[in-house]
Amino acid sequence: MARKIAILGGTGPEGSGLANRLARAGEHIVIGSRDAARAEETARQLRAHIGGSAQIEGLVNSAAAAQCDIAVLTVPFSGQAALLKQLKGVWNPGTVVIDTTVPLAATVGGSPTRMLGVWQGSAAEAAAELLPAGVSLAAAFQNLGAELLAGDAPLDCDVLVCSDDEKAKQVAMELAARIPGVRAVNGGKLENARIVESMTALLIGLNIRYRVHSAGLRFTGLPAK
Amino acid sequence: MARKIAILGGTGPEGSGLANRLARAGEHIVIGSRDAARAEETARQLRAHIGGSAQIEGLVNSAAAAQCDIAVLTVPFSGQAALLKQLKGVWNPGTVVIDTTVPLAATVGGSPTRMLGVWQGSAAEAAAELLPAGVSLAAAFQNLGAELLAGDAPLDCDVLVCSDDEKAKQVAMELAARIPGVRAVNGGKLENARIVESMTALLIGLNIRYRVHSAGLRFTGLPAK
Repeated sequence: MARKIAILGGTGPEGSGLANRLARAGEHIVIGSRDAARAEETARQLRAHIGGSAQIEGLVNSAAAAQCDIAVLTVPFSGQAALLKQLKGVWNPGTVVIDTTVPLAATVGGSPTRMLGVWQGSAAEAAAELLPAGVSLAAAFQNLGAELLAGDAPLDCDVLVCSDDEKAKQVAMELAARIPGVRAVNGGKLENARIVESMTALLIGLNIRYRVHSAGLRFTGLPAK
Repeated sequence: MARKIAILGGTGPEGSGLANRLARAGEHIVIGSRDAARAEETARQLRAHIGGSAQIEGLVNSAAAAQCDIAVLTVPFSGQAALLKQLKGVWNPGTVVIDTTVPLAATVGGSPTRMLGVWQGSAAEAAAELLPAGVSLAAAFQNLGAELLAGDAPLDCDVLVCSDDEKAKQVAMELAARIPGVRAVNGGKLENARIVESMTALLIGLNIRYRVHSAGLRFTGLPAK
């Protein structure tokens, strides 16, 4: 049976954007939400938008987490810890969790170009503390804005993948590379997510200063393959 | 008379690399060092390397700072505060200081892929506290590695410029754009230097993981001009 990818918090713009891109790449997507009806509605809209072959369903977060092979965490930072506590007993061993969370100060009413300090170093490292043994974690996709992920135009961005787990890193890098125009770049250990997360605040600032919606990152000087 | 650009700590690889690029662009360069003889020797080597028209001299840091219009600070983080305290009474009003400092943990014997926490937020904001009124500050060039700056091959990198002072930002952006292949990008306020500085640790990690010496950054999705 084909693998299932849960997008937890998938009714928000970032989550539904990733669902859009991964469903177009042929993945079987389960939108997760606190509210099953909203998850189903987002799934329906995405299917209508993408057309025929898109495999997208909607479930509450816990049901989506329980039946997926890969879970992409796209809730706001303010909801990340509560969701992971709720899901602690739900995960199947072997699940790969990909955290996209950015602790923007906007989460608590501050600026979207400033970061909150997270005691563990990053939202990703905070997530690591709340996952049970047997579930592996990578951090990725933080630098792809929701407006980039909508639609189907090829992107022009690198996605840094940070993880202390080799399998999770490989899964996340392979998944990122399925989005047209994305190159997956090995971002090293999970602790480097603190740098990658803060780069999102910088990109939001560039969007504001240059009056665009689609600032992204490319690394130069890396080997062609 | 043509403006003079002092490269303080200019005998190190980052400083002499910047001196090389800016002298090739036609700027009049003053290498600053603790040791006048070492400054003169680096200036002599750079002149020999670049050839005929290069205007590069060498002086002790305080003399270089006293006679320049623009000063680029390229000492290691461990020497930044002491140098700025020493220069506090030396600067002429109107001097633009461009800080390139990155507080890598390597400075205190740690990893070059990890950062020190700086109470002010960044090395650039620490520098801001140690400059007298009338001297303006921008942070830039942190993400251009020394190996990229050696030689004369065009770069393929953006340089983020962060500043709270409009004149300093313009001067630094115009200077960055004089290096072939560099695009100057408005990085916003000086406080954003904390993100830009940490991106250097990430680039060093990419150099190590991908076995290259020249990882750099480009932003995508910005207006063509």
